[in-house]
Amino acid sequence: MLNHDLLIINATLLANPADGRLQEAAFLAIADGAVAGIGAMADLPAQPAAKRTIDAAGNLLLPGLINCHCHGAMTLFRGLADDLPLMTWLNEHIFPAEARLVDAEMVYWCSKLAAAEMIMGGTTTVADAYFHEDAAARAFCEAGMRTVAAQGIIDFPAPGVPDPKHNIAAAADFLGAWQGKNSLLTPALFCHSPYTCSPETLQRAKGLAREAGCLFFIHLAETRGEVARIKEQHGCTPVALLQRLGLLDEKTVCVHSVWLEKEDIGLLRESRAKVVTCPESNMKLGSGIAPLAELIEAGVPVGLGTDGCVSNNDLDLFQEMGCCARLHKVAALEPTRMPAAELLGMATGGGAGVLGMAGQTGRLAIGMRADCIIIDRKQPHLTPFHNPETLVYTGKGSDVATVLIDGRVVMENRRLLSFDLEETLGEVRRLARRVRAMGMKG
Amino acid sequence: MLNHDLLIINATLLANPADGRLQEAAFLAIADGAVAGIGAMADLPAQPAAKRTIDAAGNLLLPGLINCHCHGAMTLFRGLADDLPLMTWLNEHIFPAEARLVDAEMVYWCSKLAAAEMIMGGTTTVADAYFHEDAAARAFCEAGMRTVAAQGIIDFPAPGVPDPKHNIAAAADFLGAWQGKNSLLTPALFCHSPYTCSPETLQRAKGLAREAGCLFFIHLAETRGEVARIKEQHGCTPVALLQRLGLLDEKTVCVHSVWLEKEDIGLLRESRAKVVTCPESNMKLGSGIAPLAELIEAGVPVGLGTDGCVSNNDLDLFQEMGCCARLHKVAALEPTRMPAAELLGMATGGGAGVLGMAGQTGRLAIGMRADCIIIDRKQPHLTPFHNPETLVYTGKGSDVATVLIDGRVVMENRRLLSFDLEETLGEVRRLARRVRAMGMKG
Repeated sequence: MLNHDLLIINATLLANPADGRLQEAAFLAIADGAVAGIGAMADLPAQPAAKRTIDAAGNLLLPGLINCHCHGAMTLFRGLADDLPLMTWLNEHIFPAEARLVDAEMVYWCSKLAAAEMIMGGTTTVADAYFHEDAAARAFCEAGMRTVAAQGIIDFPAPGVPDPKHNIAAAADFLGAWQGKNSLLTPALFCHSPYTCSPETLQRAKGLAREAGCLFFIHLAETRGEVARIKEQHGCTPVALLQRLGLLDEKTVCVHSVWLEKEDIGLLRESRAKVVTCPESNMKLGSGIAPLAELIEAGVPVGLGTDGCVSNNDLDLFQEMGCCARLHKVAALEPTRMPAAELLGMATGGGAGVLGMAGQTGRLAIGMRADCIIIDRKQPHLTPFHNPETLVYTGKGSDVATVLIDGRVVMENRRLLSFDLEETLGEVRRLARRVRAMGMKG
Repeated sequence: MLNHDLLIINATLLANPADGRLQEAAFLAIADGAVAGIGAMADLPAQPAAKRTIDAAGNLLLPGLINCHCHGAMTLFRGLADDLPLMTWLNEHIFPAEARLVDAEMVYWCSKLAAAEMIMGGTTTVADAYFHEDAAARAFCEAGMRTVAAQGIIDFPAPGVPDPKHNIAAAADFLGAWQGKNSLLTPALFCHSPYTCSPETLQRAKGLAREAGCLFFIHLAETRGEVARIKEQHGCTPVALLQRLGLLDEKTVCVHSVWLEKEDIGLLRESRAKVVTCPESNMKLGSGIAPLAELIEAGVPVGLGTDGCVSNNDLDLFQEMGCCARLHKVAALEPTRMPAAELLGMATGGGAGVLGMAGQTGRLAIGMRADCIIIDRKQPHLTPFHNPETLVYTGKGSDVATVLIDGRVVMENRRLLSFDLEETLGEVRRLARRVRAMGMKG
């Protein structure tokens, strides 16, 4: 006898986006936040006992998307000072705005806005990385998202850590406060980069991460300038520097990894380190094009990230998939590059693997946590819907009607249910007026 | 005394997107399909007489977008056979599907679907080009879109023109049938390419276009392969071939123009010919990256197009703008390339210039036709909204709430008003079942 908390019926199911197989007329049963049953409607008992039933009515049901790199709180700076040279943008706009405006309250509200945007765009898991990450963690927990929250570490005065001497201690406090606290939240560490953290800081941070058994994120090989600088200072590439410092292992997540040499890819493969690609950010900042096909061919696990809103400027993983697929095709002048199924896998199960959550999320199967989304297919731009590729090349976050995370309905028919969206929009608008009052371009 | 058909009040106005200037608390008055008044709410008479008022309540009001190249009817083949090598895709999938399925009925319904998608994405003017263009013209007129409809010409058996000997006569019939028939529709001609039309066909078509005073569209210099082939056959580049044949003038619109040599850009500039760039199509097919900055610097007018749904796969000009801006930044490794205002201009007034409509649409000013859209800013991904750049890097078609074309409300609060969307979706789904019944990848 089935006895479920929630039953989704009459769906077109894409249980494992990486294989691209659609099953018409399917059901998904959820109990205790996990998938308890999945299959053809024909196999559903005539009178299943469920507290609640959602009729998907031919709409598409698939696992929620996984954003492997985000600085949620930077929603406040969305669109601030676009189209400027990189160093002008950073030094004259972003850093001053951060120095004056980033506090725990700002991080809380702006991370909550990021959570709203992500949930409403079909993202159910996020790996966030910023300062005052404690406030971000609270925001994501209240939003009901599955979250890896990584406290930022940098050898400069930073929001919440005015004296960089205390950056490792602050990170340790963060891990201590959040480990085992909330089943949806996994704390982690985020070293900003090899050019803003000393080798000693990097090693201490990775040591702390190893003790805690947590993920270690780092921006790595993002620009040609960074690679040149690291080579000048250390005589090797950024990846080789991490290897030399003993930092590469299966819990190290290298974000961006645009400018890699052949040997770097070998080091990543051998160490079982992970890579997150953020194509829209790399495009908008003019950073470059990551060697994705080479990384994938080498067997390096790759996840997809949006990066923060200053460089993207949104958190829509559907558009990120489409842009990523198109970019690599045109870069190689080869339309077979980065096929849609590769992107769908990267944004779901692949991302789960990068975050060490392959057994929990990223696929819909019995025993997996019930993180799933329903896409409204009854729209002109999704008609006809010949195959799942359509999600990559045509889908957008706004096509997502309903979102479940850990079995809980957090959005239904585009209405956010897990928190008060109007309150968050109001608080962020209030903070945005402070940005404009500073005379920032706006 | 004002006496208007429609008054939009309390808008944040972006009257000329190319200049990026926002005016808070603005109104727009419309009479007889044209802009009759525009300005600050403070300057609006206390009791304006208008048959109808729309309160935009702080939402953004701007000119409708202009899609300068589209094959609307190809919505039927959206997502068909993605990620395949170009020649396999064309010869084994697209051409056979076209040969078996394209008739006047298919073109009518699938163009209507394209119109729905474009209107719902904020596009108010389209330059469409296909076969059975008479059926497309009917569909776009019924949808209430401002349209340039170009009958396709090719030296092969084509839908509606089984014997290519009659392709010019069929085009002449089309022009004759539509000139002066509907104030929203301008007929034109579309030669498929210099490798599928003989020099004689090209010259006869352009001659016909000159007689009729209409635009002449052609796919030109889209791939490296095309350029190599034309050089081998004619000893010059595709642009130089058109010049030699006497086809380049201010009413010739060169679509794609990806692989241009320096001399080609000079020929385009001197002849005052126009270019349409379709970056998402060029990316997805692995065709290449057009030298946009060089064209713009040379003063060649450039419009933005989506191309058809087989190669894009949607008709969303907001995403096209964002993708275009990002692509050119990463290609040049320079974040200042193709700034947002350039894209906003290209998708509005710039496109109007390319289509010879600069006096009618693309800006909101007294006397211009009232083609405008209202963007719902009260959404997480558009918050905060520091400046119009946000539309380029974050906006999507689904953000458009309300659309007016020629003063007529064709969509309001995301409900399409100009025709029965459900009927069109149903008809296209019926046709899509025929595609799948043919055993096409789906």
